[in-house]
Amino acid sequence: MSANLPRTGIGIDVHAFAPDDEPRTLWLAGLQWPGERGLAGHSDGDAVAHAAADALFSASGTGDLGTNFGTDRPEYAGASGVLLLTEAARIVRAAGFEIGNVAVQLVGNRPRFTPRRPEAEALLSAAIGASVSVSATTSDGLGFTGRGEGIAAIATAVVVQL
Amino acid sequence: MSANLPRTGIGIDVHAFAPDDEPRTLWLAGLQWPGERGLAGHSDGDAVAHAAADALFSASGTGDLGTNFGTDRPEYAGASGVLLLTEAARIVRAAGFEIGNVAVQLVGNRPRFTPRRPEAEALLSAAIGASVSVSATTSDGLGFTGRGEGIAAIATAVVVQL
Amino acid sequence: MSANLPRTGIGIDVHAFAPDDEPRTLWLAGLQWPGERGLAGHSDGDAVAHAAADALFSASGTGDLGTNFGTDRPEYAGASGVLLLTEAARIVRAAGFEIGNVAVQLVGNRPRFTPRRPEAEALLSAAIGASVSVSATTSDGLGFTGRGEGIAAIATAVVVQL
Repeated sequence: MSANLPRTGIGIDVHAFAPDDEPRTLWLAGLQWPGERGLAGHSDGDAVAHAAADALFSASGTGDLGTNFGTDRPEYAGASGVLLLTEAARIVRAAGFEIGNVAVQLVGNRPRFTPRRPEAEALLSAAIGASVSVSATTSDGLGFTGRGEGIAAIATAVVVQL
Repeated sequence: MSANLPRTGIGIDVHAFAPDDEPRTLWLAGLQWPGERGLAGHSDGDAVAHAAADALFSASGTGDLGTNFGTDRPEYAGASGVLLLTEAARIVRAAGFEIGNVAVQLVGNRPRFTPRRPEAEALLSAAIGASVSVSATTSDGLGFTGRGEGIAAIATAVVVQL
Repeated sequence: MSANLPRTGIGIDVHAFAPDDEPRTLWLAGLQWPGERGLAGHSDGDAVAHAAADALFSASGTGDLGTNFGTDRPEYAGASGVLLLTEAARIVRAAGFEIGNVAVQLVGNRPRFTPRRPEAEALLSAAIGASVSVSATTSDGLGFTGRGEGIAAIATAVVVQL
């Protein structure tokens, strides 16, 4: 019976904001955010898409971003967060799972997410072929998100083995 | 079939403790905590109730605390965390979902939560008409919770579309 | 009907690395990690196993590590993380729940988890008699995990009332 119980998973992703002398474009939840400070890193820094992908891998027991898209998979170098999320959904389905939903919460001072929430949810839901909800909050000035050093995203997902 | 799979959601809430020269009453998990340092903020600072509400919104894709109770909804200004959680459950049901459960974990040095856990769980479960569990832990002296600057609560929820 | 909906739970655990002048063996995800800096604390510091246990308690509403294994239960003093997790699964089943799965994500700079992921997942899954997935990430140099002060683990679980 357990085989047909839904399974849940968890994914956290953190990215630091790019330093002033190395400005980057902000990509978050699949969207470009003109005028906002970008996130650092080798990837596009899309913590929302990355956390969502890790939650899907976690729920299905198919590893994580590192094992699926890491340095030994050079074809993914520089891939966008949305492309990785799309590919994660394909991998999870290929492993025999149906995707229920993914829910992500963004924690950070910037950008102001709410006005573009519907746009982000539509884009990410289309990417995985299942509902993705995205909400946002701050950490009340505390911790690295509160000091504006970076952002965090936390995601949970439901999958069921077919 | 996906429409009838259960959906999961996530919610984090962080509040800083009030400064010494602006003492406040501590409200947490729907309970008043006499003799404990209160939390700062425009709301009552009830991180447990707020995280639970955000997890319900997240699971059902109905936004978040900001979009449902934000500054453009002045009727919620100053509302207690339990009132917001109660209202969140009503909104989620009105959107066509049944609520399975909500589980919240409190992370912080204070207050000592365990003695009042049953009381908190009964109150919050009654508020949403479904099981709410509340557990507690510390962060081993690390981070803003470990330094006693504030508390964090993290919640997950299950809902199913009717 | 709610009684038979699956329930979800959440568990976070944080442990600081042991100071240089009090070296300890690292235990994580049920495995011993030779040559790695150990974690401090009265327990073995196995944050992955502890977070998994707390997620099971949270999902089933049976308390938390403190209420089940705390200082008033001296028979658990010094127990390994895996033993506590095994016992948590027994307690949750005794309370009338079937366990669906547990998913844990490790957040930290060290150890390099990926090479031993299959070994850890097999050991922890055997301990609870249900699937445990373990993934890993870093926090991009931010926060206490980014500074290498300690590690965090976050877990979610599904249970269903029989």
